[in-house]
Amino acid sequence: MMEGCVFCDIIAGKAPASMVYEDDIVAAFLTIGPVNPGHLLVIPKAHYALLAEMNEEIGMHLFKISMKMAQALRLSGVRCEGINLFLADGEAAFQEVRHVHMHVFPRFRGDNFIIDADWSNVPSRQALDKIAGIIRGE
Amino acid sequence: MMEGCVFCDIIAGKAPASMVYEDDIVAAFLTIGPVNPGHLLVIPKAHYALLAEMNEEIGMHLFKISMKMAQALRLSGVRCEGINLFLADGEAAFQEVRHVHMHVFPRFRGDNFIIDADWSNVPSRQALDKIAGIIRGE
Repeated sequence: MMEGCVFCDIIAGKAPASMVYEDDIVAAFLTIGPVNPGHLLVIPKAHYALLAEMNEEIGMHLFKISMKMAQALRLSGVRCEGINLFLADGEAAFQEVRHVHMHVFPRFRGDNFIIDADWSNVPSRQALDKIAGIIRGE
Repeated sequence: MMEGCVFCDIIAGKAPASMVYEDDIVAAFLTIGPVNPGHLLVIPKAHYALLAEMNEEIGMHLFKISMKMAQALRLSGVRCEGINLFLADGEAAFQEVRHVHMHVFPRFRGDNFIIDADWSNVPSRQALDKIAGIIRGE
């Protein structure tokens, strides 16, 4: 538990949440800032600020439950023609609460969610191979 | 293998890819349309168009490798102050290639990646509780 962490407060029952799923390892509840109705967050109950602090077993379970939540959304009757999973690891990646959380949210044609980037600079195969080598640690 | 699927072609060695990681279950390679240099896709080797078609064990392994790729990016020396994981399940959710893939991409302050939505409509706790009940199947 981390003092002052709103997600830890939710897990401890000290802050309200509209809970959808809970087990010993993770919890899933609706965010108060939804992209679309039904927008869930799946979090580990233990406090990890960043992905690198969380062990793989917990990560795998968190993803398993994220898959189940995606399917629950699709079957629920909330407006849902597709699903996005989104995880922001670090402030530069738009992480706002420093407690690992996977966004799982419904999408439909004509909703207001957008993503944009500068895709104009198409890298050459040579450039990609070079970056791949760097990431492989060569 | 799905005829005409570019990711299946990559796995079969019929299309080029700048590979970063490969095992029996998943592969990770650089996308040709990066948000930022180092932008990877982690995919199951078998063809599943949508998340619901992929069993949880494969999903969990895919996420484990996505975590490893996130860490590899952070340690690689490519510009990386944060990481986003993003998965688009269904065309309405911006899925472009109909073969499950997790985006893993580095972020840094001042990059060109943006997300936007209409966050003006803040739901009441009552409204959230009602949606949570619907998703729980009550």
